[in-house]
Amino acid sequence: MHLAFPAAASADPADASAAAGTTGAFDPLAAAERLAERLAATAVERDRAGGHAAEERGWIRDSGLLALSVPAEFGGIGADWQTVYRAVRIVARADSALAHLLAFHHLQLAGIRLYGSAQQQRRLLTLTVEQRLFWGNALNPLDRRLVAVPTAGGYALSGVKNFASGSVGSDWLTVSAWDTLAGAALIGVLPTRQPGIEVVADWDAFGQRQTDSGNVRFADVLLPEDLVLQPATRAPSAQATLRSQVAQLVLVNLYLGIAEGALAAARRYLLEEARPWPAGGAEAAADDPFVQHRFGEFHLLVRPAQALADEAARALDAAFAQGGALSAAERGAVAVAVAEAKVLAHRAALGIGNQLFELTGARSTSARYGLDRFWRNARVHTLHDPVDYKLRDLGRFALDGRLPEPTPYS
Amino acid sequence: MHLAFPAAASADPADASAAAGTTGAFDPLAAAERLAERLAATAVERDRAGGHAAEERGWIRDSGLLALSVPAEFGGIGADWQTVYRAVRIVARADSALAHLLAFHHLQLAGIRLYGSAQQQRRLLTLTVEQRLFWGNALNPLDRRLVAVPTAGGYALSGVKNFASGSVGSDWLTVSAWDTLAGAALIGVLPTRQPGIEVVADWDAFGQRQTDSGNVRFADVLLPEDLVLQPATRAPSAQATLRSQVAQLVLVNLYLGIAEGALAAARRYLLEEARPWPAGGAEAAADDPFVQHRFGEFHLLVRPAQALADEAARALDAAFAQGGALSAAERGAVAVAVAEAKVLAHRAALGIGNQLFELTGARSTSARYGLDRFWRNARVHTLHDPVDYKLRDLGRFALDGRLPEPTPYS
Amino acid sequence: MHLAFPAAASADPADASAAAGTTGAFDPLAAAERLAERLAATAVERDRAGGHAAEERGWIRDSGLLALSVPAEFGGIGADWQTVYRAVRIVARADSALAHLLAFHHLQLAGIRLYGSAQQQRRLLTLTVEQRLFWGNALNPLDRRLVAVPTAGGYALSGVKNFASGSVGSDWLTVSAWDTLAGAALIGVLPTRQPGIEVVADWDAFGQRQTDSGNVRFADVLLPEDLVLQPATRAPSAQATLRSQVAQLVLVNLYLGIAEGALAAARRYLLEEARPWPAGGAEAAADDPFVQHRFGEFHLLVRPAQALADEAARALDAAFAQGGALSAAERGAVAVAVAEAKVLAHRAALGIGNQLFELTGARSTSARYGLDRFWRNARVHTLHDPVDYKLRDLGRFALDGRLPEPTPYS
Amino acid sequence: MHLAFPAAASADPADASAAAGTTGAFDPLAAAERLAERLAATAVERDRAGGHAAEERGWIRDSGLLALSVPAEFGGIGADWQTVYRAVRIVARADSALAHLLAFHHLQLAGIRLYGSAQQQRRLLTLTVEQRLFWGNALNPLDRRLVAVPTAGGYALSGVKNFASGSVGSDWLTVSAWDTLAGAALIGVLPTRQPGIEVVADWDAFGQRQTDSGNVRFADVLLPEDLVLQPATRAPSAQATLRSQVAQLVLVNLYLGIAEGALAAARRYLLEEARPWPAGGAEAAADDPFVQHRFGEFHLLVRPAQALADEAARALDAAFAQGGALSAAERGAVAVAVAEAKVLAHRAALGIGNQLFELTGARSTSARYGLDRFWRNARVHTLHDPVDYKLRDLGRFALDGRLPEPTPYS
Repeated sequence: MHLAFPAAASADPADASAAAGTTGAFDPLAAAERLAERLAATAVERDRAGGHAAEERGWIRDSGLLALSVPAEFGGIGADWQTVYRAVRIVARADSALAHLLAFHHLQLAGIRLYGSAQQQRRLLTLTVEQRLFWGNALNPLDRRLVAVPTAGGYALSGVKNFASGSVGSDWLTVSAWDTLAGAALIGVLPTRQPGIEVVADWDAFGQRQTDSGNVRFADVLLPEDLVLQPATRAPSAQATLRSQVAQLVLVNLYLGIAEGALAAARRYLLEEARPWPAGGAEAAADDPFVQHRFGEFHLLVRPAQALADEAARALDAAFAQGGALSAAERGAVAVAVAEAKVLAHRAALGIGNQLFELTGARSTSARYGLDRFWRNARVHTLHDPVDYKLRDLGRFALDGRLPEPTPYS
Repeated sequence: MHLAFPAAASADPADASAAAGTTGAFDPLAAAERLAERLAATAVERDRAGGHAAEERGWIRDSGLLALSVPAEFGGIGADWQTVYRAVRIVARADSALAHLLAFHHLQLAGIRLYGSAQQQRRLLTLTVEQRLFWGNALNPLDRRLVAVPTAGGYALSGVKNFASGSVGSDWLTVSAWDTLAGAALIGVLPTRQPGIEVVADWDAFGQRQTDSGNVRFADVLLPEDLVLQPATRAPSAQATLRSQVAQLVLVNLYLGIAEGALAAARRYLLEEARPWPAGGAEAAADDPFVQHRFGEFHLLVRPAQALADEAARALDAAFAQGGALSAAERGAVAVAVAEAKVLAHRAALGIGNQLFELTGARSTSARYGLDRFWRNARVHTLHDPVDYKLRDLGRFALDGRLPEPTPYS
Repeated sequence: MHLAFPAAASADPADASAAAGTTGAFDPLAAAERLAERLAATAVERDRAGGHAAEERGWIRDSGLLALSVPAEFGGIGADWQTVYRAVRIVARADSALAHLLAFHHLQLAGIRLYGSAQQQRRLLTLTVEQRLFWGNALNPLDRRLVAVPTAGGYALSGVKNFASGSVGSDWLTVSAWDTLAGAALIGVLPTRQPGIEVVADWDAFGQRQTDSGNVRFADVLLPEDLVLQPATRAPSAQATLRSQVAQLVLVNLYLGIAEGALAAARRYLLEEARPWPAGGAEAAADDPFVQHRFGEFHLLVRPAQALADEAARALDAAFAQGGALSAAERGAVAVAVAEAKVLAHRAALGIGNQLFELTGARSTSARYGLDRFWRNARVHTLHDPVDYKLRDLGRFALDGRLPEPTPYS
Repeated sequence: MHLAFPAAASADPADASAAAGTTGAFDPLAAAERLAERLAATAVERDRAGGHAAEERGWIRDSGLLALSVPAEFGGIGADWQTVYRAVRIVARADSALAHLLAFHHLQLAGIRLYGSAQQQRRLLTLTVEQRLFWGNALNPLDRRLVAVPTAGGYALSGVKNFASGSVGSDWLTVSAWDTLAGAALIGVLPTRQPGIEVVADWDAFGQRQTDSGNVRFADVLLPEDLVLQPATRAPSAQATLRSQVAQLVLVNLYLGIAEGALAAARRYLLEEARPWPAGGAEAAADDPFVQHRFGEFHLLVRPAQALADEAARALDAAFAQGGALSAAERGAVAVAVAEAKVLAHRAALGIGNQLFELTGARSTSARYGLDRFWRNARVHTLHDPVDYKLRDLGRFALDGRLPEPTPYS
């Protein structure tokens, strides 16, 4: 992968130095590079096939990266968010669907750290490392069909959650459910493979095809009291609402990985395959002034997004370090930084995914190159929440300092 | 289709009035609407399947539209180019791949009218109407592997032509071949189904999947003297070089049909399926100010492209009316008008195909809607020749009145 | 002027043919060209000076163009709107401030035709031709400080109107005032030079500096009954609400004239003064591929705006021909056509005015060229009403066919 | 100024922390803020007047900022480039013409450090601090009319240099001249006020009006040997060619200051003066969703430019720290970082300067607000060298790692 992405690597010294944020002999970024390389070899063909990538999930597990964000005290690697996101970005260059699985796993772990009691954190995170658990998500806040009815020892869950990414093939799930008594949502965790839980792999979007998303159906499943991370009756602290920022920054780095991957693929094609347009008179496609100019524009889509994504990750690390002392204003500052990076990464991924073909030309649309997957992956994934509302939030902030309202999306 | 595209139809009175350019009781635009409606029902599924749409080709034949551009004196409908292109655009809203087949058929007929002798025109165009021939293309000027060696009674053709769209399933082909003696290319026509000609359906692009494009292999095939439309030794007249403008304007109207189809699909989804984003507070997605604003931008991508495409078609009709008297300057004026429309249509198709999802949201990426086909079709087809060189040509013209050099692309 | 704008002229055959819409020996477009040429000689210096251009107002009067839109039955030239707007556009290429005076004069005449009784039309329009009256505007609907109190023989007007363009130096004014009794606004006309009316030339914007705009103060001025065009108690007909479309299309053509003037000035500078950038290696600035590419973009800002402005003028002419039979739907269709052209012309004027310098370079910023006046004029004038609400209106129309609500701005 | 720019200040913690790069009790950023506040009070009126701002030059001198970049060993403040640029940016928010004078002064000092011998550095920089010298520029490499003829004790200079910014009112000048013997340019320094040197203040651009630029005429002026920093015969080292990067980063920070100033002015106007557009229904302009959305876009023009400008300054500091050991590759990496920031800052300044009016509306064009000066200053200053060639250079780098060729502009 390093060979395939030389210029960006050289432009981006942080790839190397960020590893400093990790402990011990395990090098997360090198592990991510190895994983990316392995995934790259079959990415085009797996994108075409879609469905569940069981074997490749195993590669992620084998990479050691599932323990990346787990604090060292629970047996994990204890990497900071800067490192976690950088690893995600590296993997996403090659395969943004499987990178999503890795990233959403860490999002679930973040939820445990942000919502869970000390005891829950110890128990669940230790278990995660020991059993190499792979976590999935069943938390879509816009889908309120999953209901939690208080019962002996906890809650009885019944109903369904859609857009549950990473649920297919997961070991454990984070779940949100509507507590009918409290009139609000609770958040808990559960082992995926148990009677009453059925994961229906019905994700059929035209991009991000192997994100193992689906509908999760619950039929009278017990959520024990001690697996409730956030009861419906407890207002989330500023710290707890960081979870949506962890999620948003996952998206930022996935988009950015797509943009970097598309840029690298365009470069490779231009240097190795493309022919110059006769009317331009250049000897090679890469010598055409219009090609160079557009490539300069692509570079300027990626670089600022990288810079602001890294800034946002540093801000998130600082906010995590505050723990329960995090103020609403500090949380809001993180949300602004993440929103800035998100719009830029959104535009970088879509812009390059869409326009790279102006440079590579008609022959590059052959299915054997699979170059359309960058746009398809970017297009599907950037719809998580509307970019126009991110811009609105940034505009409000820039106008009068108003901070984004804490929601599952901001 | 009228129901599916109401606003554009009402905004575009020419849809109705253009029919005035046709003769007799056959209404080409109504026929195109009927064909579009028929194709629309299976467009998503055929896009997924790819390959040769034999049955649907039959529908095109049955529609009567193959005779559209054939002058009445040869038994055709004698429609002007404005009408031909409008019919193509209507069909392309529903299915831009099959619309391409219809349009490229008429491009071949234009070649006969522009290059052919009076005798050739009479013979070939009459045959086309009588036998309901479907024409294909084997003319890619960038591929010089097909060679014509002078032989008794004509030329022996050997070699291969790629990007031969419409060749699979065609009855006759237009062919360009490198005349080794003359050191230049000749143009001729041939029945497709004969010994020595093999059409290899190897088109595997990610869009425009049913354009029946492929490699056509010729093994010592005789091109008889009387089927040579343009010998390599004869410099093409201004009139003859109109052919590339007919071709470019085909592309314009295909792009425009894609844009119109995408706009209509987005509208349908927004009015019937989409949910408003909670943070915006609107009751319906179509009431969200950001949705309305972006939709206004889409409208402004389509409308100017329509206006200039229609202007260019009128200019082409006027140029055809000049016949052999057409001057280089008049030909150049057509090329400028077509280039203007081409850049606008390119941007309309790509822009709407790419951005419609910002409005329709995550659920609209489900494969059952097939909404990504607009971008894929636009993306593949707009790579016919680089948009940057169209802009350069327009800039040169606007700077000092320099007209585009007549080439196969300008 | 023809010499100075050769390419656009050749690209735009309508310049010549539009004259067909006029009557008799007077050629309005030739007159406009002559006027433009005369104004061009001092445009840079008068832009710097600002203030009232008394002498140049005289040139407009002498040009014969004040009678352009007056129907022949009242002694006028009886030109259609296409011709009026084209004349305005030609003058605006050279001087968009004085073109504004010419155009707003005709807007006032349109008001008389749309609101006035048959008798008022005959009286006022005949007077306009006979006395070569120059009309100004005191109608800003957002400023409600001017009050009309019913009194013997009419209304007593007191208060002030701002943004009254063309008022300084005018002979007659159209006035809107708040009828305190009716709780709505009336519209009337008055001779400017009479006791109680004071025109305060306080316009100090950074562009459109000679538009003779100001505050008009009224101190107990009688508006006689027979000079009331539209009483506050009468709901305006669809026909009457066309006035705002006449006004909007004035703006369109002023913006377009600015864009065309900027393009012509950039071309002249590039061909006659500019030096190529050394790193590009071209022998002349106009040979630089980036210069050509950007100039192509400029061309594509202007052309579609021209095409849609002309379409909108045709639609307006058709609506005028309907007279009192004009339906709300037909009126709405005009509003859509005008809104489309307005956004495009807005962008053309601002875009070229802003970006032309990327091509002409540092030396072209010298005050002696005055090339910044295009941006300043465009910037000030395009703020008449917000472009975002035009886009919203177009989006609503494209979404569900909703027509713009008749207001003074739509 | 802090009060006037609150949100950006809070979003940009580096404003405060960057001061850490300075020594002692003098706080350069606080000094810059004070200077900016003082300049802001008359900025609109001085922009209108143009010409030489003698008194305000004195304020700069009094601010202590002329010694900012002078190493402590020569009596200066010894601030790093990050701090120098940040100070420039702060001043440019209020007055980008006078900020240019401050910045170009430091550019001349950088030249002494990069080209000069140890002895020259000591002598000239010490003198600068002791006598509070203000340096100007007479170095335009595209103007080769100034000739240096070897003579006894040095060179005789004769001819003229244009675009000599900061020359009017300067104490010393950096000069480049064409060494007729060597056939290449030399660089030297000279006191401005001496017989034979005449500074002609003929700068008449429509922006950056008080940059004291002009033509400097030399009539047989002796450039003594020991004031030659870079003889024509010596090929410049990688270190020496850093000077053009110092200059380019000056421009970046001036553009950025303009962008920040325009954003702050737009915010102020929106919060204090603007009225909501009636058709939108918002109670205040700042509550209009289109206003918020556009303001979010403005924010996203500024923030990435700030981030990359700061990164580039850090890279420059690191390169200076390398001294003579700086490699061509390291120098090239700085050039890439600066080019990235330059394009972004260019777009931020022009984009906000141009578009802010869409939000503030017609009344904000009154000369009393002077809001057009941001666009005029940005427009003039961004033409220093063409942005298209920066994009080309970035494209080349991103394509195959090619570093920008060291020139006076790259």
